[in-house]
Amino acid sequence: MLIVMKPQATEGDVRAVCAKIESMGFRAHPMPGAQRTAIGITGNPGPLEPAEFETMAGVAEAIPVSKPYKLVSREVKSEDSIIALKTGPGKADVSIGGRELAIIAGPCAIESREQAFAAAARVRQAGARLFRCGAFKPRTSPYSFQGLGEEGLKILAEVRREFGLAIVTETVDPENCDLVAEYADVLQIGARNMQNFSLLKHAGRLKKPVLLKRGMSATLEEFLMAAEYILSEGNYDVILCERGVRTFADHTRNTLDLSVIPAVKRLSHLPIIVDPSHGTGKRDKVTPLARAAVAVGADGLIVEVHPNPERALSDGYQSLYPEQFEELMEQVTAIAGVIGRTTARSALATAGSQLQESGPHCKDRRFSS
Amino acid sequence: MLIVMKPQATEGDVRAVCAKIESMGFRAHPMPGAQRTAIGITGNPGPLEPAEFETMAGVAEAIPVSKPYKLVSREVKSEDSIIALKTGPGKADVSIGGRELAIIAGPCAIESREQAFAAAARVRQAGARLFRCGAFKPRTSPYSFQGLGEEGLKILAEVRREFGLAIVTETVDPENCDLVAEYADVLQIGARNMQNFSLLKHAGRLKKPVLLKRGMSATLEEFLMAAEYILSEGNYDVILCERGVRTFADHTRNTLDLSVIPAVKRLSHLPIIVDPSHGTGKRDKVTPLARAAVAVGADGLIVEVHPNPERALSDGYQSLYPEQFEELMEQVTAIAGVIGRTTARSALATAGSQLQESGPHCKDRRFSS
Amino acid sequence: MLIVMKPQATEGDVRAVCAKIESMGFRAHPMPGAQRTAIGITGNPGPLEPAEFETMAGVAEAIPVSKPYKLVSREVKSEDSIIALKTGPGKADVSIGGRELAIIAGPCAIESREQAFAAAARVRQAGARLFRCGAFKPRTSPYSFQGLGEEGLKILAEVRREFGLAIVTETVDPENCDLVAEYADVLQIGARNMQNFSLLKHAGRLKKPVLLKRGMSATLEEFLMAAEYILSEGNYDVILCERGVRTFADHTRNTLDLSVIPAVKRLSHLPIIVDPSHGTGKRDKVTPLARAAVAVGADGLIVEVHPNPERALSDGYQSLYPEQFEELMEQVTAIAGVIGRTTARSALATAGSQLQESGPHCKDRRFSS
Amino acid sequence: MLIVMKPQATEGDVRAVCAKIESMGFRAHPMPGAQRTAIGITGNPGPLEPAEFETMAGVAEAIPVSKPYKLVSREVKSEDSIIALKTGPGKADVSIGGRELAIIAGPCAIESREQAFAAAARVRQAGARLFRCGAFKPRTSPYSFQGLGEEGLKILAEVRREFGLAIVTETVDPENCDLVAEYADVLQIGARNMQNFSLLKHAGRLKKPVLLKRGMSATLEEFLMAAEYILSEGNYDVILCERGVRTFADHTRNTLDLSVIPAVKRLSHLPIIVDPSHGTGKRDKVTPLARAAVAVGADGLIVEVHPNPERALSDGYQSLYPEQFEELMEQVTAIAGVIGRTTARSALATAGSQLQESGPHCKDRRFSS
Repeated sequence: MLIVMKPQATEGDVRAVCAKIESMGFRAHPMPGAQRTAIGITGNPGPLEPAEFETMAGVAEAIPVSKPYKLVSREVKSEDSIIALKTGPGKADVSIGGRELAIIAGPCAIESREQAFAAAARVRQAGARLFRCGAFKPRTSPYSFQGLGEEGLKILAEVRREFGLAIVTETVDPENCDLVAEYADVLQIGARNMQNFSLLKHAGRLKKPVLLKRGMSATLEEFLMAAEYILSEGNYDVILCERGVRTFADHTRNTLDLSVIPAVKRLSHLPIIVDPSHGTGKRDKVTPLARAAVAVGADGLIVEVHPNPERALSDGYQSLYPEQFEELMEQVTAIAGVIGRTTARSALATAGSQLQESGPHCKDRRFSS
Repeated sequence: MLIVMKPQATEGDVRAVCAKIESMGFRAHPMPGAQRTAIGITGNPGPLEPAEFETMAGVAEAIPVSKPYKLVSREVKSEDSIIALKTGPGKADVSIGGRELAIIAGPCAIESREQAFAAAARVRQAGARLFRCGAFKPRTSPYSFQGLGEEGLKILAEVRREFGLAIVTETVDPENCDLVAEYADVLQIGARNMQNFSLLKHAGRLKKPVLLKRGMSATLEEFLMAAEYILSEGNYDVILCERGVRTFADHTRNTLDLSVIPAVKRLSHLPIIVDPSHGTGKRDKVTPLARAAVAVGADGLIVEVHPNPERALSDGYQSLYPEQFEELMEQVTAIAGVIGRTTARSALATAGSQLQESGPHCKDRRFSS
Repeated sequence: MLIVMKPQATEGDVRAVCAKIESMGFRAHPMPGAQRTAIGITGNPGPLEPAEFETMAGVAEAIPVSKPYKLVSREVKSEDSIIALKTGPGKADVSIGGRELAIIAGPCAIESREQAFAAAARVRQAGARLFRCGAFKPRTSPYSFQGLGEEGLKILAEVRREFGLAIVTETVDPENCDLVAEYADVLQIGARNMQNFSLLKHAGRLKKPVLLKRGMSATLEEFLMAAEYILSEGNYDVILCERGVRTFADHTRNTLDLSVIPAVKRLSHLPIIVDPSHGTGKRDKVTPLARAAVAVGADGLIVEVHPNPERALSDGYQSLYPEQFEELMEQVTAIAGVIGRTTARSALATAGSQLQESGPHCKDRRFSS
Repeated sequence: MLIVMKPQATEGDVRAVCAKIESMGFRAHPMPGAQRTAIGITGNPGPLEPAEFETMAGVAEAIPVSKPYKLVSREVKSEDSIIALKTGPGKADVSIGGRELAIIAGPCAIESREQAFAAAARVRQAGARLFRCGAFKPRTSPYSFQGLGEEGLKILAEVRREFGLAIVTETVDPENCDLVAEYADVLQIGARNMQNFSLLKHAGRLKKPVLLKRGMSATLEEFLMAAEYILSEGNYDVILCERGVRTFADHTRNTLDLSVIPAVKRLSHLPIIVDPSHGTGKRDKVTPLARAAVAVGADGLIVEVHPNPERALSDGYQSLYPEQFEELMEQVTAIAGVIGRTTARSALATAGSQLQESGPHCKDRRFSS
């Protein structure tokens, strides 16, 4: 059930509806929009009677939600969600889901202060505003490098201070979720944990945005339901991420399913980005697929970049060299320009070119996808 | 690296080798076999020098292990592992991986004391020795029934006392692992958690056998590596379970991959059972696939049976009616008979028939698979 | 639309109904059953009026067919189809779909008279009644051995005369279909050609039974529709064959989908057999999966056996040695015994054992699958 | 084996090498390049002795080819193949694989002269240079509309004369291949026939370019090997086409695998285009995926456009309305512009904008993919 408030409804009206919902033993999720506030109801075992709410002050209508997912649905919130990160006083704000593409880059795992700083300097310069780097690594083998742990998180905090990059790093279980949240700007939940419901619920109770990767064989509905777990606990700042699915095809490590981007855009208000590094597993495929991801309408990219890929402790074969990442940024900035979007690099480019205003193609933020 | 002791090596010899391994900063995993003891080494960052060990008393040879998984491998332990459950004083012991098939049956989720007792009585009578029933349910939707929690576990403890059935129930995160282990005889880790490495490591530190289900798109190597996580922490009692993988095929909910049974048998000493309920997702396919699973060489079955499937709170469409489970048991007992295995039902059958000794086909425990 | 005749309807009544259907511009498919005859109608662009037929002499009822496939459906013919092969005067008849399992064995490709004869002698002795061997081979590479062609077919005709084995061999295009039909008892259409509709239609106009293999990524509906192409042209003798589908799993060449057997049995009257050789692609997996196929309810097996697998010109790694095929036959005969079926080997076994009458398990032809 | 001629080698030198190859019983495939001619050898059962050729006049070197495919490989021909169509005297030439993207559009099946002409007028105007339309339709059901046959081909010939569009239409078996080749500019071989080797060989003996669609579960190697069948018969004008593969994902009809574009570009000199209509099966996904296909580096698109999709006899739900196709063309032309490529629409656009010369991004024909 979704309660849609009138545009002129007061804050008190909204509070009264929420109080009524809670008094019935359910959970109220007020979602302010540009025009009006909507209030999602979860926790109800069956359909509710619309009349119970439609007679209250400020209520426009009470409508049943037809999809199994509720809070992630465009039925509940028709405008795109834009997730703003506050990376610190005096630091440039970063947002995900807006006109500017969110570019997240960095090494698979933090190996040392030197490695992290070297990577951060290069990706910052190339136009990334967010830094990805794992301190806790879920590895297929118990005998593989499992990450530097909290020591790594501390270095990431330094990276933020030094380079003004927002930090995206992985959490692997409910226990370590709180620790990671102390240091990170965005909590990453990996593909293998997409249906680790305890972790999803725990992340839903924190106040940090969550980057949720699609599971290797997750259907679109399962993907959205996993996000719903987080929202249902009160955390509405979820960024979805397509990172390839598992198929019979053997020329890439996974098969990047770019059709999921317009499919998500149709059903959900949440932003969705693409990981062409895991999505292909091969360095020479990353940039072409990054171009395609931007062209299809993704809200950003997450890319593995390592100052020295041959010596990487994990995923070296799919990590870009810093100069390759610069090329990637140049190319995706060009594509962004013609579909009415920008990157942090666009501003630099503007001085010397008219690229991002290239004519009739950027009437609005993007082509209808 | 694997240290193979001589048949006549003393316990002191074994202890000395373990002490040397620990002194090098690695972990020793002594694995007693019928003829000799082998000692697995984990934690070493690279290859070790065989001569370091081959000169010690009682050591036959030191051999490198060629597979990425070590402790689960037949290279380390050539005999089949048989996992014995002690379900209580005065209760019949149950074992998994031996000549008798392990038959695990019961409802998807515990709904009430009445439901659990009704199911337990029927599956016990039909020949199951283990009872499956979930108290903590990982559900795709946050709004679906999530299980009765500890209250359910307490009822399961009653089921064990009352019916002498060993209890198999699911654990969903490291935190609740300890709680579940207090009540269960076997901890189940579900397909969605197959690569929840925190949970695997936690279960590896407990003293309870673990039933590990294959992930929906897990390769054989990933499946064995997930088991390796548990063994590497010191818990060697792992039972693998094939439960269907995700494919394009739409006539069943999953595609049951029975070829993984002989594939596991070739590479690993661990027992492996089959779940034809989730493996097909359709009630009328469960019994034919259960027959096939026994014929292919599985060490047992885990089957959903509900006293009243239409009223089940989850998975009703794939749960057998109690009388269907009896038919299933009759049929798999017949198949077991001709491939040199038994079920608890075989003994009953023997009085009236010679089925399980049907000629030359049961020279040994099973056909070479 | 399906016209069901009354049990006492005369041949003239049936002819009159067929004449009426043809006069309307459609096609009539009379299908005699044990109790009554049914007449399928194809070629009608939309639903027909039942009353047009229900008033005719001998008609019991006219019922619309709900599935997209018609003639292959159990709605049209409820009894299992049994396909009888007449292999020549004085030769034992072979049938597929009856109580005795159809065992088809032989090398992937015919290489020489000596090789074919050596294989035929061994598989005949082990209990096969049909000989599989390709003279025209569809190969992934244009540079691989493509078969001996008509010369090979002539040798196969000799094999039939010499060993009394029915010949199953592949046809690869409409042109060569007629040629192959001159020599073969059963025309095989391979997985890559499952949706080669020209070939299916051509085979539908011949009078020879067709063994139709499931495509590598065919859904159940597509599989049945491919068979429908053959039946719709007037050839009702189709044998379906599951040979593995393509998935992410890499421990076998294909993933054998045994659940399709009970799924086909529910929807269609056609017999279905299993190919554990292509279904696994590995010699050591063939026998366990053959056991499983028989246990799940398949009507037979098609198995690659080569007198000298290491020297085979194709598929050597998945071909059984003749002595392995004997073990396979021994094992599947045992399984067949307890599910109420037989093999040609059962008769031999009977002298010394009571295996195939093992008690209450063979009340009827097979367990309800 | 590949014989690389010296830049200054004469035509006589090339003929002499070919003659020698033929005299050995093999087949010679001379492939002229910008700098030099290379001569592929096929039909040799094993490796040849390089010295046999390296001593001949004009020969630079003889090098073994390491891949299972030979003539399609970049090892044999390093420059991109550009396939030129001659659509008739006085008509504008069309080429596939060059700087201008090949845009192929039109209805799934030809239904009438009016429908074809209406579609052709619209797609021509929007910037397509090739017209796709099926006269022979391979359909899953024998009871579905199978196409107008030769009558349809005749209408297509009229479309070419009237609109100057090159005609792309499907051939379904070797027999009808000759008939289709009389009318078509490009023979299309569909996904279901990708491994119909008889058809591939037949098409290889004709002089018409072939558009070969990837099979639904074809690996990259199988795809290239299927093309190799055509080239090995002497027809080097093959255009590859990605049209989606079959996976578990259910939000689109197929999963479009765009990573195969850079993968093909790395291994083969053949052009490759993308079919976003079958690749997604949903009208609203076609344009976003078309943008992505161009961005990833495809050489063109094949798109279903119908003047009246709701009344289409096949594939209506995935066919674009003509005005949607115009939007698609506008968008892909913009993307093409920034990656250094063009469409027929670019020229029109140039008058009013500088789009296709947008700065440093079009140094060369495309980004290295």
